[in-house]
Amino acid sequence: MNAKIRLYVEHPLGVGQSVPLDKGQAHYLFGVMRQSVGGQVLLFNGTDGEWRAEIAHAGKRAGTLHCVEQTRPLQMPPDVWLLFAPIKKARTDFIVEKAAEMGAARIVPVMTEFTNSGRVQRDRLQAHAVEAAEQCGGTFVPEVAEAVKFDRLLDGWDTSRKIMFCDEALAGATSELPMQPGPWAILIGPEGGFSDRERGKLHRAEFTDAVTLGPRILRADTAAVAALTIWQQKLGDWG
Amino acid sequence: MNAKIRLYVEHPLGVGQSVPLDKGQAHYLFGVMRQSVGGQVLLFNGTDGEWRAEIAHAGKRAGTLHCVEQTRPLQMPPDVWLLFAPIKKARTDFIVEKAAEMGAARIVPVMTEFTNSGRVQRDRLQAHAVEAAEQCGGTFVPEVAEAVKFDRLLDGWDTSRKIMFCDEALAGATSELPMQPGPWAILIGPEGGFSDRERGKLHRAEFTDAVTLGPRILRADTAAVAALTIWQQKLGDWG
Repeated sequence: MNAKIRLYVEHPLGVGQSVPLDKGQAHYLFGVMRQSVGGQVLLFNGTDGEWRAEIAHAGKRAGTLHCVEQTRPLQMPPDVWLLFAPIKKARTDFIVEKAAEMGAARIVPVMTEFTNSGRVQRDRLQAHAVEAAEQCGGTFVPEVAEAVKFDRLLDGWDTSRKIMFCDEALAGATSELPMQPGPWAILIGPEGGFSDRERGKLHRAEFTDAVTLGPRILRADTAAVAALTIWQQKLGDWG
Repeated sequence: MNAKIRLYVEHPLGVGQSVPLDKGQAHYLFGVMRQSVGGQVLLFNGTDGEWRAEIAHAGKRAGTLHCVEQTRPLQMPPDVWLLFAPIKKARTDFIVEKAAEMGAARIVPVMTEFTNSGRVQRDRLQAHAVEAAEQCGGTFVPEVAEAVKFDRLLDGWDTSRKIMFCDEALAGATSELPMQPGPWAILIGPEGGFSDRERGKLHRAEFTDAVTLGPRILRADTAAVAALTIWQQKLGDWG
C-alpha cells in the first residue's frame, strides 16, 4: 500500500477522477518502475494538492489511474521569485531544480551583459522544475518564464515587488538584511558578476536591496540556494 | 597584467620563491589556458595566502613560476565541519564542491544505515575541494577526511564541538536556531533520511541541535548549502 512514486500530471484531480497517462508517463511507471494494475501512485498537478491514485489500466503506451483520496492539500510557496542569469547548461538546470526545491514561486531567466549563454530552452527548464517538485514532495510547480533582458526587466518592473540582489562587490561587508514582508524577487548574477552599469542601476533603484553572501565567491547555483535560504528563513515558510 | 587564473600548488609560497609545476598543471596552464613565459598567475597553497606569480619557464610536461607579491593573506574559514552521507557520485562531488565554496573547514563522509554508496574515493573528492577553492577565490582548502561509520563517529565524538543536524521529520515545524558560538559540525543525512535508531541517537546526544530546512524535502546537496548558509549567517564569517 506504500505509494512512494510521485507523478506530476496535467489533469484535474478529485474524488473518483480518472487520470489518463501519456506515453512517457506510461513508460516510466510500467516500464521503468515496474508498476502494474492495482499499484499505488501519488499524483499532483500544481493546483489540487496531492492524491493517492490506483493504477486501473496499464498499457505500453498509455494507462489510466483512478484518484482514491487526497493525501495532502495544495501548499503554495511563499511569494518569492528567482531571477537568474543563465550559465552553462548543466548549472542552469541545477539552478532551476534548486529553485523549485527551495520553494520559489516563479523562475525567470534574465539576460545580463556578461551572460554568455545562447537560447534558453524553456521547455527543458520547466521539465526540471516538474522533476524537482516530484522529488521534493512539493504540490506546486513554479513556472519558468520566458527569458527577458536585464534592462527590459528592470525598466518594466512592478515596484510593489522588491528585488534582493546579491552583490559580489559587497563580499566581506557586513550585511544586516533590511527585508520587509511582501512580494520579493531574488536576483542572481552571471559568472563574472553584473557589469558596473548594471550594478549601478540596481543600487539606484528604490525597490532593490543588496546583500552579501560572504567573503568567498559562490557559483551561481550555490548563490541561488544560499539567497533563497536567507529569504525563506527571514520572510518565507521556514520560520 | 591581469592574473585571473588561480592555481592551487603544494609548495611553499613567499618572496622570490620558485614554484615547480607538475605535468597536469603544466598541461592546464600552457596547453589549455595558452599561457607562456611572462604570464601572470595567482597561486595559493592553503597556508601562505594568495600570491601573484610569473611564468619563468614553460614546457610541455613541466614549468616554473616565480612568486612576485602576496595579493591576499590566508583567510581561514570559520570552525565548521560538514559531515555528509555520500550519495550518487555526481551529487557527492557537488556536496564537496559546495562545502568548499561555502567555507567549511573540514569535510567528513559518514556512512549511515541508509547510505547506499560504495567506497568513497577520497582523492577525487579532495580534488573537487581544490577546484572549488580555485574557482571561489578562497585561500584555504578544506581537507576531505576518511569516510567513517555513523556510530563510530558519534561514539567517539569530541563533545566540545556541537553538531547541527537537519531532521526531515521536523519539516514544517518552527525552528529557532539555538546556536551558541564555538566549534560546530553540520550533519546532512542520506537520501531517505536517517534511520529511526540514528535519529533517536542524535536527539539524545547532548552535543546536538536539530534544525528544520523548511516544509519541502531537499536533496542532500541543496540541504548542505542551506544548512551552511544558516550557520555562516548566524555564527560564521557572513555576518
